[in-house]
Amino acid sequence: MNETLAPRAAGTTRSKFRPLSVDKVEVGGFFGPRLDTVSTVTARMLFDRCIDAGMLDQVDPDRPNPGIVIPFQDDNPNVTTQMFWDSDFGKSIEAAAYALNRTPDPELEARVDDVIDAYERLQQEDGYLNSWFIRIQPEKRWTNLRDQHELYNAGHMIEGAVAYFHVTGKRKFLEIMCRYADYIAEVFGPAAGQKRGYPGHPELELALVKLGRATGEQRYLDLARFFVDQRGQPPRYFDEEAIARGEKPEDFHFHTLEYCQAHRPVREQNAVVGHAVRAAYLYAGMADVATEFSDTTLDAPLDTLWRHLTEKNLYVTGGFGPSARNEGLTFDYDLPNETAYAETCAAVALVFWASRMLGRGPNGRYADVMEQALYNGALSGLSLDGKTFFYDNPLESRGGHHRWVWHRCPCCPPNISRLVASIGTYLYGVADDEIAVHLYNAGKAEIEVANTQVTLTQETRYPLDGAISITVETASEVAFTLSLRVPGWAGSASLTVNGDTVEAAARDGYLRLSRNWRSGDRVELTLGMEPRRIFAHPKVTPDQGRVALSRGPLIYCLEGVDNGSDLNSLVLADGAAIDTREEDILGGIVRLTAKAQRETWPDDALYRSGPPLREPAVLSAVPYYAWDNRDPGEMLVWLRREPGQ
Amino acid sequence: MNETLAPRAAGTTRSKFRPLSVDKVEVGGFFGPRLDTVSTVTARMLFDRCIDAGMLDQVDPDRPNPGIVIPFQDDNPNVTTQMFWDSDFGKSIEAAAYALNRTPDPELEARVDDVIDAYERLQQEDGYLNSWFIRIQPEKRWTNLRDQHELYNAGHMIEGAVAYFHVTGKRKFLEIMCRYADYIAEVFGPAAGQKRGYPGHPELELALVKLGRATGEQRYLDLARFFVDQRGQPPRYFDEEAIARGEKPEDFHFHTLEYCQAHRPVREQNAVVGHAVRAAYLYAGMADVATEFSDTTLDAPLDTLWRHLTEKNLYVTGGFGPSARNEGLTFDYDLPNETAYAETCAAVALVFWASRMLGRGPNGRYADVMEQALYNGALSGLSLDGKTFFYDNPLESRGGHHRWVWHRCPCCPPNISRLVASIGTYLYGVADDEIAVHLYNAGKAEIEVANTQVTLTQETRYPLDGAISITVETASEVAFTLSLRVPGWAGSASLTVNGDTVEAAARDGYLRLSRNWRSGDRVELTLGMEPRRIFAHPKVTPDQGRVALSRGPLIYCLEGVDNGSDLNSLVLADGAAIDTREEDILGGIVRLTAKAQRETWPDDALYRSGPPLREPAVLSAVPYYAWDNRDPGEMLVWLRREPGQ
Repeated sequence: MNETLAPRAAGTTRSKFRPLSVDKVEVGGFFGPRLDTVSTVTARMLFDRCIDAGMLDQVDPDRPNPGIVIPFQDDNPNVTTQMFWDSDFGKSIEAAAYALNRTPDPELEARVDDVIDAYERLQQEDGYLNSWFIRIQPEKRWTNLRDQHELYNAGHMIEGAVAYFHVTGKRKFLEIMCRYADYIAEVFGPAAGQKRGYPGHPELELALVKLGRATGEQRYLDLARFFVDQRGQPPRYFDEEAIARGEKPEDFHFHTLEYCQAHRPVREQNAVVGHAVRAAYLYAGMADVATEFSDTTLDAPLDTLWRHLTEKNLYVTGGFGPSARNEGLTFDYDLPNETAYAETCAAVALVFWASRMLGRGPNGRYADVMEQALYNGALSGLSLDGKTFFYDNPLESRGGHHRWVWHRCPCCPPNISRLVASIGTYLYGVADDEIAVHLYNAGKAEIEVANTQVTLTQETRYPLDGAISITVETASEVAFTLSLRVPGWAGSASLTVNGDTVEAAARDGYLRLSRNWRSGDRVELTLGMEPRRIFAHPKVTPDQGRVALSRGPLIYCLEGVDNGSDLNSLVLADGAAIDTREEDILGGIVRLTAKAQRETWPDDALYRSGPPLREPAVLSAVPYYAWDNRDPGEMLVWLRREPGQ
Repeated sequence: MNETLAPRAAGTTRSKFRPLSVDKVEVGGFFGPRLDTVSTVTARMLFDRCIDAGMLDQVDPDRPNPGIVIPFQDDNPNVTTQMFWDSDFGKSIEAAAYALNRTPDPELEARVDDVIDAYERLQQEDGYLNSWFIRIQPEKRWTNLRDQHELYNAGHMIEGAVAYFHVTGKRKFLEIMCRYADYIAEVFGPAAGQKRGYPGHPELELALVKLGRATGEQRYLDLARFFVDQRGQPPRYFDEEAIARGEKPEDFHFHTLEYCQAHRPVREQNAVVGHAVRAAYLYAGMADVATEFSDTTLDAPLDTLWRHLTEKNLYVTGGFGPSARNEGLTFDYDLPNETAYAETCAAVALVFWASRMLGRGPNGRYADVMEQALYNGALSGLSLDGKTFFYDNPLESRGGHHRWVWHRCPCCPPNISRLVASIGTYLYGVADDEIAVHLYNAGKAEIEVANTQVTLTQETRYPLDGAISITVETASEVAFTLSLRVPGWAGSASLTVNGDTVEAAARDGYLRLSRNWRSGDRVELTLGMEPRRIFAHPKVTPDQGRVALSRGPLIYCLEGVDNGSDLNSLVLADGAAIDTREEDILGGIVRLTAKAQRETWPDDALYRSGPPLREPAVLSAVPYYAWDNRDPGEMLVWLRREPGQ
């Protein structure tokens, strides 16, 4: 949808754009109530469920060793989800930190501290910290990076520690994780005697960049870069590790190291393959390394991977990875709707990847997809009441798809929760002399730019409408560039500064205002928010003869509760007007309606020699993120269409 | 498609219509070359492949015991396909018998006799005959009827024996199988000390009816009836048998006895469920019992099951059973095209079931479906050269679906082969004073009716065109009713007798000519063969906005070799004329062509705000049964359509 936005040429000299930490951004507007829900309901619930699942029994060395609580997988005997428990705690602590940032809660904070204390007691003399490999299978440390999430867990715990440090100022967990990271840096690296391994499930890479930024320690960035550079290098570490275990590399449950993007060095990877979440976490880490090291050799592979995803493998909801079998990619243009896996974690991971692509400079081709995944395929994973979760996010349902209270592999609930609760960090990218506004949402941000403290206040009902006002406050006049994203979907965009229309320089999908800013300067951007039709490439077979409706960043769907059953009996003419109506349901939405035709069938025959009959109907669409929050029923994103009025 | 054909009321007094044995019918016309191919190529090849697979090593007690050659299934450790080998031999002997009927071949006959001799040596003193349970697991006899195909094998061997007897007049195999059937009748039955079991995979029921008819022995019909009546009666035999093995009934691999239609007594079954082939074989046996015993208590369940299949679960090709997981049914209207399992054996089994439903009297609602399954979803299973086979028969392919040379579970190759090679037995149903012509195909039949020998000669190019001539020869004038089917799809039907237009009585989709017939009497029936469009019930989601093309009994498809790639980019207007052209390819076909539009896409974008562009195109369709016999490529049955010219 960004046909007009040419990619930035590789090798361009550039600034480093970094996100704000969560404590620097107050969030209101659209995300405000969602953040409140996650903070007051979900974050606490996640913590409860982790502990109810027995995770603290595994972590706390003062408790009886629980042993194997969840059996090894029947079809993949190298794995039990119990091996991932540290990551669930890591993400839940991260979500709890963001919750505490919004809503102080001494009781929750005390519970987090208890878990951190348990990890402190668990940590080994050498710094090693993994509850499974310390308490359940101590003899297996560092023997199966490919399958057993050992380094992945470290990544999520680091992210939790960084978040908890930013919000509470407490250093204990951060220091625990620094010790562990230092130990990992001893074990893994390019020097003689060090292992050449890397995470089977990428995640640690981007976490180490966060740790490096939070602590100012270059060695964590260097370790992230080592993992990125080493991945897929011959001889293949995961194969050698398998042989050392007495296994045949080709007996790998997924048969190809494409599954974990370790089939070749990252600079030689040219297609998004394998497990979707692993893929996007890896590419996020690559983009972070590209930013921090100004490593232009990663630009071409990142751009190739980005194009491969967005031009051939991305659902219109911003979800990806159609197959449940490998939780990932299959073949180009394979985007089935009803059976779409499109894991919530994959859309969340795509937000992460896209946000890191913006580290190399504001560019709408990345920010548009970040917004698309955020508002649609990610946000759909969380119910409006914050209590239930989608694991997979199909684009069509016959009525049997509903959110879960919990999952044996509970990766998605804390993942979407930590994303929503930290939404403030995705709004802006800050370089030495530039602030890029990637996303629009009411709220206030404290930003240091050009060595000056600046407060930006966004006032907007976005995405309910397209009027955005940004006010600058600063103690002293300061020169910087304020770059405002104009979404690729916007039919129009007008800009004023202090009430005067301005013609800002446009580049890569951003309007760039370079000037001396004074307190009280007010920028007003108005984006066209007309309902739009989206059509899919003819190679996407399931979408042929179909159209998706959208408005602003939101993809819409039909629900049975508004349209009755047999949603596929509705046909929308290309020329039919789409009307909008703001409604105070589902947390506040703009409903789309259109005159359509409903096909009917005169009898019980399965087949007839005449086409279905037709009667006038009105179709009524709501934002995809909000579906399955009312009476259960069918759902459909891609509606049947035909030419005509 | 038979909306006009009301079901015959249950309980009507009726004749028993039985098929002719294969030796009574000469076959020319459409099926002639196909029968030649099966006779000269396929039947021999099947025999070779059975023996190459090692089956004779398992059967012949004079050979070293091969033990377990094919491992037990990973996911269902009660089963190895080696347990089915007797059935493969049974079907292959049956196909060979029909081949010998058409094309005498002493060498093939000698090879069949060798296998029969081996079975003779294998047969136990008590009559028991099963190569797996005699040679590999002798301690397991009659311990797992549910999973291990023990009685199923007996059925296929009986069918083979009956066919071989009819064709060659040799009695050895027939007598071997009578001894085995007699032993089974000792073990299973309602008397004290007898087991209340029945086949886990139905098949023996219909085979016993064949055996009863061939031998004139009522006890085989009685045993068939016992198995039908006993099935699903409480306490459930398969559950008790599982408990006796030390297994929990609920651990059944398929979790429900619906899988094998043993969940309740057959007269209480009201939905087609579970494994598709098992289902249709069972219902065929039920219909046979209904015919032979004039058992009207089976009419209502059979009609309910028939309606459930044909009104909610039948592919337009006559295939059924959409899911590979259970090789069977899922939920109503679940008829995906690209992932359709629609096993060849299921379409073959539906021909069997439909043909048995005609035992209760000619009725187009059954004969139409028999023809539909025969010419489409069954015949597609066999390549035109007779050498390769489809196991599953999707209605759409992206280009990767092709026939196999062989299969680890080689049930389909001999099944479609025996059907084609015995096609003559499906053309007519004969009662005391009535001959029903169910299918039209050139050839000659020797029929005893009203105690008189009559020869019927069909002359027709059907289904290339709809002109059918039937000539009667008889030594003496004889009164009987000749009932001629008028297919539900026929747009028109005109009938003459000796050149004079007649108004025959029409009932249940047949024109009934009751008269004194003399040699030389000539009936001419002309059926309208205009190309037709078929539309599916709106609840069949994948077919919405789509149309299938047909002509006569044949369903058509697009192939890549005629239409290029991206078949889903073609759109056919409802008003577009469909032209026909006879061509001497694919064994002789009528090609359908129509002006259509091809959608194109201007660039590499995955999504755009405008619909695809369009350019004029011509679509070209060939019969579905003939697909994948030329250059490999895409295939599509349900074409995109829209209203208009």
